[in-house]
Amino acid sequence: MKKYLMTPGPTTLPEDVLSIMAHPIIHHRTKEYQEINQRVNEGLQYIFSTQNPVFTLASSGTGAMETAVCNLLSSTDKAIAIIGGKFGERWAELCKAYKIEVNIFEVEWGIPIDMDRLREAVRATKPALLFATLCETSTGMLFDIKAISELCQEEGVMLVVDAISGLGADPMPTDEWGVDVVVSGSQKGLMCPPGLAFLSMSQKALEKASKSDLPKYYFSIPKAYKAYQKNDTAFTPAITLVRALSCAIERIKKEGLQNLIRRHSILAEATRLGIEAIGLELFPKNPSNAVTAVKVPEGIDGKKLVKLMKDGYGVNFAGGQGHLEGKIFRVAHLGYCDKFDVIVALSCIEMALSDLGYSFTKGRAIESAEKIIKQLACSIG
Amino acid sequence: MKKYLMTPGPTTLPEDVLSIMAHPIIHHRTKEYQEINQRVNEGLQYIFSTQNPVFTLASSGTGAMETAVCNLLSSTDKAIAIIGGKFGERWAELCKAYKIEVNIFEVEWGIPIDMDRLREAVRATKPALLFATLCETSTGMLFDIKAISELCQEEGVMLVVDAISGLGADPMPTDEWGVDVVVSGSQKGLMCPPGLAFLSMSQKALEKASKSDLPKYYFSIPKAYKAYQKNDTAFTPAITLVRALSCAIERIKKEGLQNLIRRHSILAEATRLGIEAIGLELFPKNPSNAVTAVKVPEGIDGKKLVKLMKDGYGVNFAGGQGHLEGKIFRVAHLGYCDKFDVIVALSCIEMALSDLGYSFTKGRAIESAEKIIKQLACSIG
Repeated sequence: MKKYLMTPGPTTLPEDVLSIMAHPIIHHRTKEYQEINQRVNEGLQYIFSTQNPVFTLASSGTGAMETAVCNLLSSTDKAIAIIGGKFGERWAELCKAYKIEVNIFEVEWGIPIDMDRLREAVRATKPALLFATLCETSTGMLFDIKAISELCQEEGVMLVVDAISGLGADPMPTDEWGVDVVVSGSQKGLMCPPGLAFLSMSQKALEKASKSDLPKYYFSIPKAYKAYQKNDTAFTPAITLVRALSCAIERIKKEGLQNLIRRHSILAEATRLGIEAIGLELFPKNPSNAVTAVKVPEGIDGKKLVKLMKDGYGVNFAGGQGHLEGKIFRVAHLGYCDKFDVIVALSCIEMALSDLGYSFTKGRAIESAEKIIKQLACSIG
Repeated sequence: MKKYLMTPGPTTLPEDVLSIMAHPIIHHRTKEYQEINQRVNEGLQYIFSTQNPVFTLASSGTGAMETAVCNLLSSTDKAIAIIGGKFGERWAELCKAYKIEVNIFEVEWGIPIDMDRLREAVRATKPALLFATLCETSTGMLFDIKAISELCQEEGVMLVVDAISGLGADPMPTDEWGVDVVVSGSQKGLMCPPGLAFLSMSQKALEKASKSDLPKYYFSIPKAYKAYQKNDTAFTPAITLVRALSCAIERIKKEGLQNLIRRHSILAEATRLGIEAIGLELFPKNPSNAVTAVKVPEGIDGKKLVKLMKDGYGVNFAGGQGHLEGKIFRVAHLGYCDKFDVIVALSCIEMALSDLGYSFTKGRAIESAEKIIKQLACSIG
């Protein structure tokens, strides 16, 4: 059976990104690798829309989140973590691991932030740092980072954004919005295998990192920055994955960042319209372009649905996490994803729902999506 | 020009290890990946010669060293780090990063440890942990881990060994020698790309890790162990690299661990005899099977020699690090390395030395090596 990966990371990889990993390994202290490293650093600045350095770590995305925490905070600092899902929780867990006093700003999963309440919390806590999430992968919710960043600038608080699943899919103009630190990972919108994590750091953030008293070594930004300035890395880089990234970056540059985001936006809209056309409800109030979280209809067992789509049809979707287990399923349209991937996803959802006795007009999801995806003539290389 | 990689990491990769990385990505929460994960975990136990769990991290080798430090020590613990080269120094730097009181046990680079002096230091310091190195990559020196482990057991001190470059090349029977923690990396004897790090942990070490008060999250052993017991990983694994590792492990199992070490031992001996046959001197007193460090002869510029071999002949050797810069060069015979790799290395050394005016009987290095490598009939798959 042909298999399809519709999970919000890892995502399907383009053939050229895959095949470059089969090239003979090269040493990282060579001109050849230095050229790749420089192209990757510049390419990441383009994708992050920033003039700030973007550091590449050999780790999962969590490694870059930890790097932000243990470099940007000092032991007497306070922080606020906005939590509206499983990945927001990680910011708070990371702060606690370093014994940082963290004020948890709870937001109902899938619901936008009450900005007045956030401002009150910031004024009451006077934190050094605020941690937010662009696309909360567990709920498919897109947070209003632009508004959060404005608030942070007005209140003089540094902002760190987890854009692990959102980068490349949702707009994240780092410098335009004035976000100090943006974190991401390789296996989402960047069409690479897991194993690389990234973070961009403003001058203000770099300065703060140079003074932090929290312990670190592998994740030390002062070490990483020193190496970065010499077009080097502090530790042996994951050469194969960086090469794959270099290939993926060329693809993104060719498509253009605006087209990349437009493509994700159209795929997401087509998915949502298809989903709604057969009477299903979206979970989040403000959905991301990266992943669409759908409420499992009454009377259907959500875990059974996801299992059926995977084992019966070969299409791997993500289920719900935490208290949403069995209650939602998530359709990623992220990375190397084009119009017919949405059609495959919707067709699979139709067939599996039908198998489980859900009543709807068959073909309606596809029909609705087709109207939208026609806009995507030939955008992806 | 055909290029040859003779550096002690990254090392040349077998074609099947390379090509498996070009296979379509799979999700890590699937039966298919769980089977790979389990095979890898069991294979690592075989290579580490241990019944202890061996954890795989998405990081460079330094990440696993840091994992040992921040999980096995608590803030009031003392440690001893044996330093006889650049990588020994890293243990001390890591302890200092976590404000651990570390007694530095200096050993002249390339010289064996005075065990009586080490015992005195252990008795005077009463450390919780002793950090040692199997093969010190910067000098090619092999340390007597068996004797150090006996001493540690007699004195009731936990031992952590950096076997990053030594594992697979030099004997490292973890359980037989009673070593609590052994650290390694993917891009050396394991014939994989950089980006994965490993550490094995005895029950005693796991217990100590469960009580450590040092901050960590991504490198948390309690988190890793909890996931390990469910054949899972705490964070998204570097799927592509783990698959490459799974392929390399099959190779190692097919060759057999004893044959693997015997092969490295013969290649190392052939290299040493070749080197000495043209009047060159080895740097370390007790050389490792992984890498041979050679003193640059009087009157020859070591940096020029390494550059000439790389740019003029296409063979990438490592030079000296720290105060050995320009004074030694290092020939790796590590990982996917067979008899004619040694011939290529020695032939390149002969030609480059001749270019730089060093006087010797040409062909003598090859002739001496050939006598030894004949023993390697068809050991590598």
